Amino acid sequence: MGRWEPDARGRMLAAALELFAEVGYEKTTASDIATRAGVTERTFFRHFADKREVLFVGPNPLDETVTKAIAAADEGATPLQMVLAGVREAAVGLDAVRSREQAAERARIIDTTPALRERELLKMATMTIAAQVALAERGVGEPTAGLASHSAVAVFVTAFSRWVSGATDLSLPECVDEAAAALRALT
Amino acid sequence: MGRWEPDARGRMLAAALELFAEVGYEKTTASDIATRAGVTERTFFRHFADKREVLFVGPNPLDETVTKAIAAADEGATPLQMVLAGVREAAVGLDAVRSREQAAERARIIDTTPALRERELLKMATMTIAAQVALAERGVGEPTAGLASHSAVAVFVTAFSRWVSGATDLSLPECVDEAAAALRALT
Repeated sequence: MGRWEPDARGRMLAAALELFAEVGYEKTTASDIATRAGVTERTFFRHFADKREVLFVGPNPLDETVTKAIAAADEGATPLQMVLAGVREAAVGLDAVRSREQAAERARIIDTTPALRERELLKMATMTIAAQVALAERGVGEPTAGLASHSAVAVFVTAFSRWVSGATDLSLPECVDEAAAALRALT
Repeated sequence: MGRWEPDARGRMLAAALELFAEVGYEKTTASDIATRAGVTERTFFRHFADKREVLFVGPNPLDETVTKAIAAADEGATPLQMVLAGVREAAVGLDAVRSREQAAERARIIDTTPALRERELLKMATMTIAAQVALAERGVGEPTAGLASHSAVAVFVTAFSRWVSGATDLSLPECVDEAAAALRALT
């Protein structure tokens, strides 16, 4: 970067969301996004491998947040409680860096673009596997580790959908609490 | 097809698994698979859109099986019980058409090929959404419908992994029962 640009990533995300909505994902290039964001193409590629990654690279990778939370969980916590603590922390982190409006616009574009949808599913699968590995390191065996991880990520995905739907005034972490309560009521 | 070939699909699946293992997924063509299976290329494309689909097209689509089971579930069943009945039925169907060895080989190739992994995730996501829609038609609201669907599909995925792992002698439907019990014990 020619100079320190503290919010270059935020501007590139905003520019990408605008362009994907205006001209479509397929027709937008990395160069278009850089121009709209007021950065050079070189700056773009220092931050992101391609235009798709603009929507997926964040300051706090979800899988790392979840891994750390599980490693730090109380001895007395159940496997599900450990992963839920992790996804709640991921929700707190996301809530701090992204507005609901921006998250809703991102979700709308992802849901209507198959290549982005597959990438989003992969992101959730990566978070699930990270949780499984972290639980194994806490001595939790299968199938419990897998089920706890999948269920907690399901809580995250459900909470996220509800948050961006506009059907509630709850914050993202509060939506996680609501979905976790619904999970407990299921069985 | 020039004549009725009852097991053409099974032969193409077996041929694809062999070739993907021998020369790799990228280097195998639809024509190679057809030749190895003893069918014409034209027959191949009557059954599958491309070489990837050989691993994903089955006689009983999982999402349809789950949808039907939810529609037919008892009034008194909980949302989770409805979807679990669906994934168990999907497991019974799969158990009948695929050997554990073939399923394990398929899983091994999918896990090591990113394009196939994304397709497999999409297949599971499609089953989840089908269950959500079927539950909505039974009057189940969100977030319960989403959580029940995600959790039951997690049971299916966990059971499938355990079945192909060779760590147990249980059948696939029995692995589903085991994973469902582990899910109930989580909360």
